[in-house]
Amino acid sequence: MPVNVLFAARPERWTTYEVPLRTALADAGVDAHLAMEIPTAEVDYIVYAPNSDLKDFAPYTRAKAVLNLWAGVEAIVGNSTLKIPLARMVDPGLTKGMVEWVTGHVLRYHLGMDSDILRRDGKWVYRTPPLAQERSVVMLGLGALGSAASEALVQLGFNVTGWSRSPKNVAGVDCLHGPDGLKEALRRAEIAVLLLPDTPATTNIMNADTLALMPEGARIINPGRGPLIDDAALLDALDKGHIAHATLDVFRVEPLPADDPYWAHPKVTVTPHIAAETRAVTASQVIAENVRRGEAGEPFINLVDRDLGY
Amino acid sequence: MPVNVLFAARPERWTTYEVPLRTALADAGVDAHLAMEIPTAEVDYIVYAPNSDLKDFAPYTRAKAVLNLWAGVEAIVGNSTLKIPLARMVDPGLTKGMVEWVTGHVLRYHLGMDSDILRRDGKWVYRTPPLAQERSVVMLGLGALGSAASEALVQLGFNVTGWSRSPKNVAGVDCLHGPDGLKEALRRAEIAVLLLPDTPATTNIMNADTLALMPEGARIINPGRGPLIDDAALLDALDKGHIAHATLDVFRVEPLPADDPYWAHPKVTVTPHIAAETRAVTASQVIAENVRRGEAGEPFINLVDRDLGY
Repeated sequence: MPVNVLFAARPERWTTYEVPLRTALADAGVDAHLAMEIPTAEVDYIVYAPNSDLKDFAPYTRAKAVLNLWAGVEAIVGNSTLKIPLARMVDPGLTKGMVEWVTGHVLRYHLGMDSDILRRDGKWVYRTPPLAQERSVVMLGLGALGSAASEALVQLGFNVTGWSRSPKNVAGVDCLHGPDGLKEALRRAEIAVLLLPDTPATTNIMNADTLALMPEGARIINPGRGPLIDDAALLDALDKGHIAHATLDVFRVEPLPADDPYWAHPKVTVTPHIAAETRAVTASQVIAENVRRGEAGEPFINLVDRDLGY
Repeated sequence: MPVNVLFAARPERWTTYEVPLRTALADAGVDAHLAMEIPTAEVDYIVYAPNSDLKDFAPYTRAKAVLNLWAGVEAIVGNSTLKIPLARMVDPGLTKGMVEWVTGHVLRYHLGMDSDILRRDGKWVYRTPPLAQERSVVMLGLGALGSAASEALVQLGFNVTGWSRSPKNVAGVDCLHGPDGLKEALRRAEIAVLLLPDTPATTNIMNADTLALMPEGARIINPGRGPLIDDAALLDALDKGHIAHATLDVFRVEPLPADDPYWAHPKVTVTPHIAAETRAVTASQVIAENVRRGEAGEPFINLVDRDLGY
């Protein structure tokens, strides 16, 4: 008897995940029936995207676990119909992708690439970019993603300062913490990277006051969460020239509305939430491993603690 | 008595080097008189840029060494008036800068940054770039610069193939060599980086035949030497779409003339020979070390072998 695995996500995800998931399940030795439509009472596992239409888990009487496609579970953790184990996605590909995106955009600012990419005027302007060791990059947030990105930047020679709410240690990074540490970090930030979680304490952490602490001409890279930035304050700092440029991958509203001032702003680059994208191949392997464990009676990995909420 | 150090380079170099050189000489414990004008018979050391007006070394009767500001000595090594030791520049900052430039532009292509930098149309287009481990980068040339750049790309997870004329070993890199190895390398090259020396054997190594071996949509990055590329063949391959984009830092004629087709080509990014720039701070330290050695009677470092020509 095959194991019935329901894919409860939007159809465009199916296009991306069908082949990798089938491959990963087969590689894990699971005889699975994977589909977007399975009678509710026959479903064994639910592969779940929080933006799917499935909100009532009660009819899935036989299901053994909900396996989230993404890291964030805030949209499902409080669902009172969900009585079975819930696993969040911890995708090794997501960290790799984040490190690549952050390193790429830090190097882009560091090397002044935009002027080369945009210029076609035939003017050969001599310049020598500083070396990475002369460039101060500040990482706000030293969790799994912030630490991994910091380490990649240190490897390239950048002078990296990290900041987190509580004390942390990352090799090669000058780690600051707490409110005074934040001020000191921002004063050093030629390039600031935001990789903080979205909590009441981090909402609008980049505001008129904190932006003013940054050096004239600083750049901001936000692959973390949209609410970390007070958008009006950032636009004002960009217009005044205090902040030279911002590269933003996350927003309060996504997709970013077509009339949002960020799109047309000459000092802003918008990327469509690609930095922390879960990767189908590596994520499918994590999901297949949990199905294998469930069938073998082994404990699930990446289980969510409902009390803590993550 | 101070040591007389003549700075024989164009005035714009003086602006860049005066402070770093004075600092480095002082740090090396040398009591130096550094200037652009010193009576020829009183000069002890000549800091030399090959494009300076100084071509006759005969009047510098007291000089102990010519200390080249750059790595390349082809314009001076055959000068029959030069009888004193000649040191080439081996600048640790040059390698670091090359690694940063190559890594940055490989990540730029890998992440598809240009579409984000150039687009302001308010269209949120979902996409997931592949991970570096799924991206095949080929490094043509595995000398000091090619090896260092390859290692940085391997560190980021890229799938790196290297090619050199004779067999080489670089950790984590699939090293090919010889004519057949070149064909195999080019067939794999989603992104090719050219870091070969300029020799009769490498002139036009990228020509219509070799470009045709690369996969449809490949990208080329040339921080090596201008003559490595048959420019007409590259422009043709770009116009036909076989090669998707090229980023060029070096050219047969520099500065690149304003009417060169590369400037206005929508599939070409020109950077003004910044990848392999000698860095004033680190290069000044190398020069100061040689002056210190000369005064202490110790052997010079980085001496050129006149017979080998480098």
